Amino acid sequence: MPSIVTAAVILIGDELLSGRTQDTNLKSLADFLNPLGVEIREARMIPDIHATIVATVNELRARHDYVFTTGGIGPTHDDITADAVAAAFGRSIDVRADALAILKPYYDARGQELNEGRLRMARIPDGAELILNPVSAAPGFQMGNVFVMAGVPSVMRGMLQDVGRRIEGGAVVHSRTVRAAGAREGDISAPLGALAKATPEASLGSYPFMRLVAGEIVFGTNLVARSRDKAVVDHCIIAIMEIVRSLGATPEADPQD
Amino acid sequence: MPSIVTAAVILIGDELLSGRTQDTNLKSLADFLNPLGVEIREARMIPDIHATIVATVNELRARHDYVFTTGGIGPTHDDITADAVAAAFGRSIDVRADALAILKPYYDARGQELNEGRLRMARIPDGAELILNPVSAAPGFQMGNVFVMAGVPSVMRGMLQDVGRRIEGGAVVHSRTVRAAGAREGDISAPLGALAKATPEASLGSYPFMRLVAGEIVFGTNLVARSRDKAVVDHCIIAIMEIVRSLGATPEADPQD
Repeated sequence: MPSIVTAAVILIGDELLSGRTQDTNLKSLADFLNPLGVEIREARMIPDIHATIVATVNELRARHDYVFTTGGIGPTHDDITADAVAAAFGRSIDVRADALAILKPYYDARGQELNEGRLRMARIPDGAELILNPVSAAPGFQMGNVFVMAGVPSVMRGMLQDVGRRIEGGAVVHSRTVRAAGAREGDISAPLGALAKATPEASLGSYPFMRLVAGEIVFGTNLVARSRDKAVVDHCIIAIMEIVRSLGATPEADPQD
Repeated sequence: MPSIVTAAVILIGDELLSGRTQDTNLKSLADFLNPLGVEIREARMIPDIHATIVATVNELRARHDYVFTTGGIGPTHDDITADAVAAAFGRSIDVRADALAILKPYYDARGQELNEGRLRMARIPDGAELILNPVSAAPGFQMGNVFVMAGVPSVMRGMLQDVGRRIEGGAVVHSRTVRAAGAREGDISAPLGALAKATPEASLGSYPFMRLVAGEIVFGTNLVARSRDKAVVDHCIIAIMEIVRSLGATPEADPQD
C-alpha cells in the first residue's frame, strides 16, 4: 500500500500579512501536489524576518516529507529567503557559477546590466540544486527536502515544471463534491455525521453557500468526500446524494476526479 | 509613545489546504486590524484536527496580544473549533442559554427546526463572551485574547462589527505605495537598498509586476514604505519617487492613507 506523504508550505512576505497582497500560491501548490500524492498538512505566512524564516524552515522540514517556500528570492534588500534557508541548513551561500550561467546571457540578451541587485539572485546555498525558471530566468533551488521558489504567482507556477520529477509521492487523496442547492447545512448535519461515523476511512466536509437565483437568495451546501481509497469516496458520494434527495433537494455530483 | 500590538491569525479547515477553497479572510482581517493599530505577525492554515487546533491556539495566544480564528463553528461533525478552543483554555463547553436565546427565535421565525446540528452552534466555552453574527445569527465568541469567528467570508466580516470595541490597539503602521511602470526591480535594488539602510525605522518593500499595454508587456515595480512614524513614510516616498525618476520612469504615488 502506498505511503502517506505530507508537505508544509511557507509563504514568505510582509505584504501577505499586511493585506496588500492576496496569496494564491497555496492553491496552485495544492492543485499541483494533490495528483502527485503529496498532502499539504499546514501552511504558514510569515514576515521577511531572518530568524523567523530559519526557525520555521527547520521546524517544518523535520516534520514533513517536503517543504515548499514562496517569496523573498528577488533582487532587493528585503529578499532574504535564500540566505535564511542556507542558515537553516548550516550551509554557506554565495554567487554560484551555475546560476550565473543562466542569468548572464538572459540580461545580456536584453541589454540589461547584471548589477549587484541582480547578482543577488545568483546567490545559492552550497549543495543546493537549482530549480529552473522558464518565466524570468532567476532560479529557485532545492536544498534537502525544501523547495525554494519565487513569490510572483506566474513565476512560481513556471518553476513547478522543474519540481515534479523530484517528488516521490504516496497514495493520492481522491475527492468528489456533491452540490446541494436548497439543502441547508443544519438539516444535513445529522445524517452526514452518521455517515462520517460509519465511514472513518473517509473525511467528509460540509461547506455552506448562498447564491442569488432570479433575485432570491438560495441556500445550499457543498459536500465533499475525501479518501485515499477511491471506492470509499464513491460509496460516500452515493450515500450523500441519497441524503440530499431525502431533504427534497436535487444533488449534483461532479464528474470523478 | 503608543505600544506595538501584534496578532496571529489561524485559518482552520481542510478545504484551505486541499486547494478547494481560496482563503480571503486573512486580507479582510488585515484591512480591519491595520487602522486599529494591530499588526498581524503570522498566519497559519491548519486542518480540522482537534490536537492541532489546541496546540496552535495555545502557542499563538501566548505569543501575541490577540489571536483570530476563522472556520469550524458550523453545525456539522467537522466543526470542532469551539470544542478545541475550550480544551486549549481548559474550560468546559456546552449549549449556553445566551447563544440559544439568539438561535431559537432566528430558526422559529424561518420555520426551521432547531435540531441537534444547529444546537451545536450554541455550544460556547464556559467564560467566553459571544460575538454577534448579523448575517446568519449563530454567534462566534471571545475567550481571553482569542476571537473565534466563522469561516464563510461574509459571516466573518459581519462578526467584525462586534469585535472592534474589544480591541485595544497600539501605534498604527502607516503605509504608502509608489507605482513605477517601466522601472525594473533589478535596477531599483541598489538605491532602494541604500535608502533602507539609511532609514532603519521604515520597512521598504519591492513588488515587481508585469502588465500588457497595447499588446506589449510592461515591467514595473510597486514600492511600499511602512512605518509607525508617518513622517518617515512620507520621507521615504519622496526619496523613492526620486529614485524612480532617476531611472527614467514616471512614479505614481497613492494618496496618503
